[in-house]
Amino acid sequence: MQTNLSLQDAQLAVLDRIELLPTETISTQLAYGRVLAETIVSTRTIPPWDCSAMDGYAIRSKDLLTVANEGPIPLKLVFEVAAGGRPLRRLETGEAARIFTGAQIPPGADTVVPQEDVKRTGEKIEFTRAVLSGEHVRFAGEDVKDGDQILSHGSILRSPQLGLLASVGRTLVPVVQRPSVAIVSGGDELVEPDQDLRKGGIIASNAYAIAAECASFDIKPRNLGIAEDRPEDLQRLIRSGLNSDVLISTAGVSVGDHDNVRPVLKEMGCDFHFWGVRMKPGFPVLFGSFPNGPIVFGLPGNPVSSLVTFLKLVRPALRKMCGFKNLYLPTSKAVLLESMEKKPGRRHFVRVLFENHNGRLGVRSTGNQSSGVLRSMATADGLLDFPEKESHLSRGSEVLVHLLKEDFVS
Amino acid sequence: MQTNLSLQDAQLAVLDRIELLPTETISTQLAYGRVLAETIVSTRTIPPWDCSAMDGYAIRSKDLLTVANEGPIPLKLVFEVAAGGRPLRRLETGEAARIFTGAQIPPGADTVVPQEDVKRTGEKIEFTRAVLSGEHVRFAGEDVKDGDQILSHGSILRSPQLGLLASVGRTLVPVVQRPSVAIVSGGDELVEPDQDLRKGGIIASNAYAIAAECASFDIKPRNLGIAEDRPEDLQRLIRSGLNSDVLISTAGVSVGDHDNVRPVLKEMGCDFHFWGVRMKPGFPVLFGSFPNGPIVFGLPGNPVSSLVTFLKLVRPALRKMCGFKNLYLPTSKAVLLESMEKKPGRRHFVRVLFENHNGRLGVRSTGNQSSGVLRSMATADGLLDFPEKESHLSRGSEVLVHLLKEDFVS
Repeated sequence: MQTNLSLQDAQLAVLDRIELLPTETISTQLAYGRVLAETIVSTRTIPPWDCSAMDGYAIRSKDLLTVANEGPIPLKLVFEVAAGGRPLRRLETGEAARIFTGAQIPPGADTVVPQEDVKRTGEKIEFTRAVLSGEHVRFAGEDVKDGDQILSHGSILRSPQLGLLASVGRTLVPVVQRPSVAIVSGGDELVEPDQDLRKGGIIASNAYAIAAECASFDIKPRNLGIAEDRPEDLQRLIRSGLNSDVLISTAGVSVGDHDNVRPVLKEMGCDFHFWGVRMKPGFPVLFGSFPNGPIVFGLPGNPVSSLVTFLKLVRPALRKMCGFKNLYLPTSKAVLLESMEKKPGRRHFVRVLFENHNGRLGVRSTGNQSSGVLRSMATADGLLDFPEKESHLSRGSEVLVHLLKEDFVS
Repeated sequence: MQTNLSLQDAQLAVLDRIELLPTETISTQLAYGRVLAETIVSTRTIPPWDCSAMDGYAIRSKDLLTVANEGPIPLKLVFEVAAGGRPLRRLETGEAARIFTGAQIPPGADTVVPQEDVKRTGEKIEFTRAVLSGEHVRFAGEDVKDGDQILSHGSILRSPQLGLLASVGRTLVPVVQRPSVAIVSGGDELVEPDQDLRKGGIIASNAYAIAAECASFDIKPRNLGIAEDRPEDLQRLIRSGLNSDVLISTAGVSVGDHDNVRPVLKEMGCDFHFWGVRMKPGFPVLFGSFPNGPIVFGLPGNPVSSLVTFLKLVRPALRKMCGFKNLYLPTSKAVLLESMEKKPGRRHFVRVLFENHNGRLGVRSTGNQSSGVLRSMATADGLLDFPEKESHLSRGSEVLVHLLKEDFVS
């Protein structure tokens, strides 16, 4: 087992062991945000035939060639093509057909004159300008041809993709499965949010924050509950989560007398890949896996540490399983509006607020950076990336920030 | 009724008539992405008492004042405080208590020495360095005090906010309601995706694309189905959606013989606020409302027109109802990598692809900009905003783009 890794090495070690999940077929109506597991080839042609893009008159463009020299040309209205209807017959020289948006162009006709461009007196229709062949016609296959690859494997299904799938008749769609995730909280001091605080003192809120983070990409974890500080109790809960793809524990992963996560997992047959990542918040992180069982993340117990280690190590793993290509939080360059200090040796993620600084993105600390203080995480717009080797960042220097709110764009 | 508005005027006219929806109380576990409808005041203190941030020994810092001059100082281990447990009694001079992360600091003690910093031989514990008062102590109320406003009205509930709500025992949360939305598709040429194309020719895919767009902020519209080109049929469907907050129709809103949306809505008592917006794709857009009934949007029938008018006019309205502050798609400046031409008089939204251009965001057209071609919308990264009055944009000029993929950040 590796210990005391850089975050980057830890991230690579995690992703190295993560595979894309298999495919499942679901209703296109329920597929928003999912990742397409196959390339989709259309078995339809859209539009299926040449059709009108306007309400007007289908004609033969050659019939109007002389209009500029000889003045308005009357054509004989011989039939109507309703939207969704078929033309009665071929259009011959000197004839026009009333046509509506989406209706099939009659054989013989090659163009459409919008209704607002003709002079209509009772049944008599006059055309006052020459037109090119193909005006206001949507040609068969203009959008999609039978046999076209319309969406490629790995596409994220958003509104245009789902509209396109519907438009070629795909009411079911093969997508990458979502991982099943189970969360265990550890510690005698913990109680559930609706329980009496006198029992413990601290509400087991980490499971709720992690579940919410999973919900942001449509994963609904099971909350297996709170394990007491007895190895048997932790073992019981972990056992109940072994049928998951990913098992996440929070707290109890350090080296104290009551830190049961590592000994219990070891006894249950979990292989350990690394422990301890040079980051702050969040040094004590365990990454392991059960042979033929779940991937295991042991996260620290402090609320901010558990959330930041989730974002930096667990989220990318879950997103890789789901088939996403963007695994990490989006980043932006920013101007630091106050100097910052730390000891070298760990990469710090400093909770920061964003502000406009002469048209650029400016950042400053949220204040208290204690890893117990979840409140600063709720107000933070981003996490400033304070490199491992640095001990000082000057006011005015350019820094990298990881964006916590997906609706922020610089 | 106003006609032929600029998009900006149309957007203002829409938002002017939209009100925030009322409050509902839901489970905190189901509240991801929702907007908080009240300011949340904590009725708890976190941590509830001074507690240890480490596994180690609670002591009186004054007992170690002389350690630098006189060498290691032994203290008498008198009791243990387990996580979640209470101290047995007050700590007196010369005494130490074994303490675990999260456990209450005993009265009399004022600091914690981590276990790795002491020399322990059997029952004998020696302290080898002086410590300050308050080291490794999380003070009562450090995160939240009883009576603190922890989250303000209008906050979007993401992982830190939901963790914080859990941590103060709020298992239920007041949020802004989501609007109920109903979608009607119009036209004899339309069929549902699982029906035989020979009936009509065009699949009613707009309802699916719009529903997916709504799903991106957790609204699940009802798809009321396809109205035939008879006024009675359209009226029947619209009537079935009058119990919604928002009614969206696609197609049939122009001025053709079969464009029934306007006459039918008028007959049913809908007030019209505007028709016709100087944008492309998407000029024929109707905005109206039923007295004591739904807001109504009549969108064009072409797939790209319906989606772009949805994004520019309906989405902001729905988001305002939901309590979001960011109503519009995020935007970015970009470098245009090819020249573009259009007629002045309408604001165009050109589907573009993004590429890296010497470290800046570069954009070029997806190609075919026909409003029938949904496929170009599926590949597009953004919509270039080609201003109403302009007719030419030069290669290399700076342009504004609206981002279609929320995971893109420049």
